[in-house]
Amino acid sequence: MIALVCNCSLSFAQNGIVVFQTDFGLKDGAVSAMKGVAMTVDKKLQLFDVTHEIPAYNIWEAALRLEQAAAYWPKGTVFVSVVDPGVGSERKSVVLQTQNDYFFVSPDNGSLTLIAEKMGIKEIREIDEKINRLPGSAQSYTFHGRDVFAYTAARLAAGKITFKQVGRLLSPEIIRIDYQKPVLEHGVVKGTITILDIQYGNVWSNIDQKLLMRTGFKIGDSLLVKIYKKDSLIYSGDLLFANTFSAVPELQPLCYLNSLFNFSVAVNMGNFAATYKIGSGPGWKMEVRKER
Amino acid sequence: MIALVCNCSLSFAQNGIVVFQTDFGLKDGAVSAMKGVAMTVDKKLQLFDVTHEIPAYNIWEAALRLEQAAAYWPKGTVFVSVVDPGVGSERKSVVLQTQNDYFFVSPDNGSLTLIAEKMGIKEIREIDEKINRLPGSAQSYTFHGRDVFAYTAARLAAGKITFKQVGRLLSPEIIRIDYQKPVLEHGVVKGTITILDIQYGNVWSNIDQKLLMRTGFKIGDSLLVKIYKKDSLIYSGDLLFANTFSAVPELQPLCYLNSLFNFSVAVNMGNFAATYKIGSGPGWKMEVRKER
Amino acid sequence: MIALVCNCSLSFAQNGIVVFQTDFGLKDGAVSAMKGVAMTVDKKLQLFDVTHEIPAYNIWEAALRLEQAAAYWPKGTVFVSVVDPGVGSERKSVVLQTQNDYFFVSPDNGSLTLIAEKMGIKEIREIDEKINRLPGSAQSYTFHGRDVFAYTAARLAAGKITFKQVGRLLSPEIIRIDYQKPVLEHGVVKGTITILDIQYGNVWSNIDQKLLMRTGFKIGDSLLVKIYKKDSLIYSGDLLFANTFSAVPELQPLCYLNSLFNFSVAVNMGNFAATYKIGSGPGWKMEVRKER
Repeated sequence: MIALVCNCSLSFAQNGIVVFQTDFGLKDGAVSAMKGVAMTVDKKLQLFDVTHEIPAYNIWEAALRLEQAAAYWPKGTVFVSVVDPGVGSERKSVVLQTQNDYFFVSPDNGSLTLIAEKMGIKEIREIDEKINRLPGSAQSYTFHGRDVFAYTAARLAAGKITFKQVGRLLSPEIIRIDYQKPVLEHGVVKGTITILDIQYGNVWSNIDQKLLMRTGFKIGDSLLVKIYKKDSLIYSGDLLFANTFSAVPELQPLCYLNSLFNFSVAVNMGNFAATYKIGSGPGWKMEVRKER
Repeated sequence: MIALVCNCSLSFAQNGIVVFQTDFGLKDGAVSAMKGVAMTVDKKLQLFDVTHEIPAYNIWEAALRLEQAAAYWPKGTVFVSVVDPGVGSERKSVVLQTQNDYFFVSPDNGSLTLIAEKMGIKEIREIDEKINRLPGSAQSYTFHGRDVFAYTAARLAAGKITFKQVGRLLSPEIIRIDYQKPVLEHGVVKGTITILDIQYGNVWSNIDQKLLMRTGFKIGDSLLVKIYKKDSLIYSGDLLFANTFSAVPELQPLCYLNSLFNFSVAVNMGNFAATYKIGSGPGWKMEVRKER
Repeated sequence: MIALVCNCSLSFAQNGIVVFQTDFGLKDGAVSAMKGVAMTVDKKLQLFDVTHEIPAYNIWEAALRLEQAAAYWPKGTVFVSVVDPGVGSERKSVVLQTQNDYFFVSPDNGSLTLIAEKMGIKEIREIDEKINRLPGSAQSYTFHGRDVFAYTAARLAAGKITFKQVGRLLSPEIIRIDYQKPVLEHGVVKGTITILDIQYGNVWSNIDQKLLMRTGFKIGDSLLVKIYKKDSLIYSGDLLFANTFSAVPELQPLCYLNSLFNFSVAVNMGNFAATYKIGSGPGWKMEVRKER
């Protein structure tokens, strides 16, 4: 009886919201077809987006965007992430249920790395494509996004299938992208430049607020920031640690905590990344220490 | 009595969903104004998009995007397509009901070419702009998209007007774009490059799976693919016919069936169109034969 | 008793629709996080967009896009506009209720200039961030868009707070951008180029239809149009005043009333702004007189 209750609560953890993310762009009808499939499953679903402008095949960025947005949605939301360079190969199609009851429908190719770290894995199931596939689509080898991922996500979100009915339970492990995690060594904080906030050219790291607090850095400090591309020093400067861009004159650089509470650098009313030719990803590292 | 029932079922074929397509882009407020008009008509409508990134005035691409996405939406969905270089001229504003009960609100300028071929025409009505026009908008000569098309689509989708009330019945003919249809001649398949899948640079033709099957081509075959711009040979190569990009090494070209089940060529993890300078549209032709 | 009824009607003027505008772009998860916050407040809200492609920090364009789209939405709609170069500085966070009962949630930095002129100010309240802030977000100094603006807009739209509960009443004044208003002097109409319709390169002014009618200009007239960048003459030409682009041959310029009923110039099937190197904003002026 207890087990039954437990199964029931699992199967109704979904909330009817589906949030889509792809690297398809919005110039053609591919995203629209995915949403059409979802509406055909159940007109009462509510459909939203993270972004469809993930650079083609960029799994690292897919992982970051899910981490950035997912926690702000209601629990029970079903996310569909389709950045899938290995479509048709042996990579698995999975649904991950996090400890806090979000659902992520995605190829198991690293896209779920950061969400799994942040929210924890409750269960992972492999999508049984014999059952969970848009009727009539079996001959399509190349549009899993529409025929498997969107269809399964919609049916799960609408309660047409339980989480169990997605497919067989896998061991709670996923393919993970290897990247430099933030560390504090001898008063120096080291981390990775995870992403450029491209609209503004701000440079975001994975050095989080808690680690910074252990260093004793505080707003108003001048910090020595170094940026490396692999082992080459690309930028070095003393930057004010501020809580508003306007704390420094226009076109001057500063450092701050971004909306994810991560250490970041920017130019007030300017573009840090373009000015100093900074990139992002596992190859780009940042070091921060208090100026002496 | 039977006729009455039939009329009733026609008038309620709509399902409350409106899907928008334009060449307006999303940088200004034009698409938002269209959706605002629809919400003002009825807050219970559900509004979605095909794309708003159709290249300016590109009717061919408008036709393609409707064909790509529409069939995945529930029957009864009302599509609004506004790619309208002839706005204000003598072109008609119409609503096309397809044989399978989708509705397309559009200028009759070729945008409906492929949907009419694919789904068949049940009825076409000309929008009576004396009735079906946003109140107070009569002095606006240039924004039919908002004042006529969005308004009429919303009222039709919400059941505020029946299909009959759109306006007078036209003969079931539309303006059609002339293009090379796929043919099989002496073992060679010929067709048109309909579109570039620009996010990835894949090259899509209108050569469909059924025609290919008549040739006997099968997965694993090596096929000789030639691409012409008008009469000039631009590309010629022997390509593996695969059902997954990873069937060839990275940066190698291949051919495959795309998500529309059409013959296409691509480079695994690369960009075929950019690499070989391939374009699309009626001027670009593709030939395929089995390698000997 | 009358006062009570009045308060009640104020507190229920909202209609459950939230429309977002930012300069964030759609490449990352920032807009999605804002919508997630709104859905977490109330799943029954309906969420839409003006645009998220406002050029970074461009308050003038933020003001224009609100003016372009807002009036087409149902009364009671709550707009959120986040173009906020002064985030973290002393600029106020406000909600403006217009005379006709739309709501605008925005930094008070000029973004509301044109809406206030067009719709009139009924009341302005400063957002009390001690109450109206996403729980747990107090340490985030840089994402007011999500934690304050989206959260407050969603709660207001859903009726979780009344307009009064936004915060204290301010005097009914806002920060306004200074710009050249349209005037008629000695038969010459003068105004500002407010914006380029960038998808097509059309050039839009703030010279409205009513002012034009006072001049006696009418469709079919040839008008002498001059464009100045500050005091330098950039373009001068005699243009047909037409109500359809196809009134002139392809690639020929014309003048017309745009969808906002404002005087504009364009090239039929071409790009006026690119051809003649025209920009927009307070520095760009247009003069029109009837050709003699």
